[in-house]
Amino acid sequence: MIRFSSSVTNLRSSEIRDLMSLANKPDMILFSGGMPDNDLFPLREVDTIYQELTDTEKKIAMQYGPTHGIPQLLASLSEYLKEKGLPVEENRLLITTGSLQAINILAHAFIDPGDTIFVENPCFIGAISAFRSYQASIVSIPLTADGLNLIELRKKLDEMEKAPKFVYLTPNFHNPAGTLYTRETKLGLIELLKNKNIPLIEDDAYSDLYFHEEDKLHLQTIKSINPEGIDVCYTGSFSKILGPGLRLGWMLVPEEIYKKCELIKQSIDACSPSFTQMVAHKFLQNNVVTDYLNYIRPEYKHRAEIMTQLLKTTLPKGCNFTPPRGGFYIWIELPEQIDATAVLKRAIEKGVVFVSGKTFDPDGTRNNYIRLSFCNTSEEKIRKGIPLVVDSIRAEMELSHLPC
Amino acid sequence: MIRFSSSVTNLRSSEIRDLMSLANKPDMILFSGGMPDNDLFPLREVDTIYQELTDTEKKIAMQYGPTHGIPQLLASLSEYLKEKGLPVEENRLLITTGSLQAINILAHAFIDPGDTIFVENPCFIGAISAFRSYQASIVSIPLTADGLNLIELRKKLDEMEKAPKFVYLTPNFHNPAGTLYTRETKLGLIELLKNKNIPLIEDDAYSDLYFHEEDKLHLQTIKSINPEGIDVCYTGSFSKILGPGLRLGWMLVPEEIYKKCELIKQSIDACSPSFTQMVAHKFLQNNVVTDYLNYIRPEYKHRAEIMTQLLKTTLPKGCNFTPPRGGFYIWIELPEQIDATAVLKRAIEKGVVFVSGKTFDPDGTRNNYIRLSFCNTSEEKIRKGIPLVVDSIRAEMELSHLPC
Repeated sequence: MIRFSSSVTNLRSSEIRDLMSLANKPDMILFSGGMPDNDLFPLREVDTIYQELTDTEKKIAMQYGPTHGIPQLLASLSEYLKEKGLPVEENRLLITTGSLQAINILAHAFIDPGDTIFVENPCFIGAISAFRSYQASIVSIPLTADGLNLIELRKKLDEMEKAPKFVYLTPNFHNPAGTLYTRETKLGLIELLKNKNIPLIEDDAYSDLYFHEEDKLHLQTIKSINPEGIDVCYTGSFSKILGPGLRLGWMLVPEEIYKKCELIKQSIDACSPSFTQMVAHKFLQNNVVTDYLNYIRPEYKHRAEIMTQLLKTTLPKGCNFTPPRGGFYIWIELPEQIDATAVLKRAIEKGVVFVSGKTFDPDGTRNNYIRLSFCNTSEEKIRKGIPLVVDSIRAEMELSHLPC
Repeated sequence: MIRFSSSVTNLRSSEIRDLMSLANKPDMILFSGGMPDNDLFPLREVDTIYQELTDTEKKIAMQYGPTHGIPQLLASLSEYLKEKGLPVEENRLLITTGSLQAINILAHAFIDPGDTIFVENPCFIGAISAFRSYQASIVSIPLTADGLNLIELRKKLDEMEKAPKFVYLTPNFHNPAGTLYTRETKLGLIELLKNKNIPLIEDDAYSDLYFHEEDKLHLQTIKSINPEGIDVCYTGSFSKILGPGLRLGWMLVPEEIYKKCELIKQSIDACSPSFTQMVAHKFLQNNVVTDYLNYIRPEYKHRAEIMTQLLKTTLPKGCNFTPPRGGFYIWIELPEQIDATAVLKRAIEKGVVFVSGKTFDPDGTRNNYIRLSFCNTSEEKIRKGIPLVVDSIRAEMELSHLPC
């Protein structure tokens, strides 16, 4: 009998993962993955970057770097974030191995076993597992179409004897819900958290992937609003704007929090890959990132619109979703009686796969939602796959004698 | 007042790090770093690898991969490890972001706050910080020139009410001590740990860097001996045989332990960089690794011999070291009264830097040792720097009225 730590004794592979392995067939249409399309990666740009690296730069790429990141990337990323209005000067930047590592490190910095933290419901699955691995007691606040339900947040804050260790949110193009918080919700949230000694972790992996210039006002991150009286721990990622295979993200946090996080990172992987840091640096430095974003935004927008249109015209009554204004996902609410896992099983048989709602429920109970990713599937496959998803939903609804 | 978790409340930047920042001058001779020489990296080989990557391979490199590693690297690394005699078939391989992450994940898998674990004294600093970050109670067993002091190990095992959660060891070319365990020590260790339900973490970052073919018998890893009745968790790294900037290591562990570790890794960084995994895969697949090791081994051996020779002829009486038979380090014991930090301060003034012993003492007390790295300094600089180190030792000894 191996004596594991109590934090992992109850860790289990999720049901959804087991199911997904069934979906590992060559012709399967994938609405499941939260990753960029393989065919949209900037391969030629990366080729040019590699070809132009000097031997000195290659040596830096092969060597250990400082724990917080190689100076080259710290400088170019600082510039990039400053241009987005982030308060880079008054904070510290720490390069991490994907933004999931940033979230994990922050979890380690704040959570003692049993500590309460607040998250959205639904919530990014990676964050849930990071918080669980430090044995947090996770309290979830429902999302609305405008962002976090502030009435519920206030109620939960009033109810708690001890303030939560932090609040974790994804205000811009939420995963899985696709939600863009309105500016009003962001400002209301700031009012509620002000001077309460509750840090806010703002996960901002998707905000560069907006579809509408006119959303700029709502898109402003809470970190950029730079509210007084809240320690905002801002996390970002290269996964959606360059490539997840580089495993690079960052956190921009107040000095005192940075110091602890740097020490934690030292004990996790010493530093993030210098090799990919150098590539990301050149990508920012040569301003390839702007051109690339201008190339992928309309493509993702197009896919989202195709999917939205198909769903709007074919989804049975009782199924609802908010058309996404950016990001990677459409989040469909099914009638309460419908079990998304049953729908998923049917869909897999038909040759299409997505993620069922329970996966993203911190309480692991509500399962009448499905997440469809439009990001890594071509228009042709979207047109082929969505009817199969809708058929699967309809079949489950018929089984429940629901009108559809 | 930020409410950090108790695991990080007491995390402090080490004294040695602060001192090292003083040593950050352009002409400083560095005997401090445990990293390969920048000038020895296989840059042309990596160029060829990049140039020969197909677009399909580049897409894999840019994308998320499975948590345990991309299939290409898992296959080529399995072959590499099999050739080294490791029991790959009966275990599971998990690619990690540097071998430090493998150690960190194993620590997370086993340690509850307050749990006892056993390590060597001295011990790899990265492992100490990983174990501390999970609030382990660290018990250290002294190293001898032949490896772990088995008499002390047996005593400590008998003394403990509860068995330690694991024993962490670096049997081949220890960092910092340079020690190569004798085969007898390894067999004795196996006898002592057999059927005690105490997993052994065998850190094997350096065994490819042997200087003498005739050491092969002693070099056989404990994992390769494949002892019954011990769960050996074997960790390895690409940092010393390719480049640390790739941030790639691995663990080879029994299935039950693998399952927990994979779940933990999912919550840390989802997967290691596919980009560098693809490079490492090609490095193994094309067998460039063998040629490269044949190129660097004599170079490191040469540097070790130069340093050994200089130290042998100039170190004052009362200073002792075992000439290294591989790896990166020479570990010098100074007379008990001498404080290595005082020697280091003098050395930095003279333009040379190394790491003082306390850094590697899990108890943080003994400071009459210094670690000299011969790995990333040229022969010329070794010849220039060693006299400065010896002068600094001599000056401190004179101050203590020791004959020298």
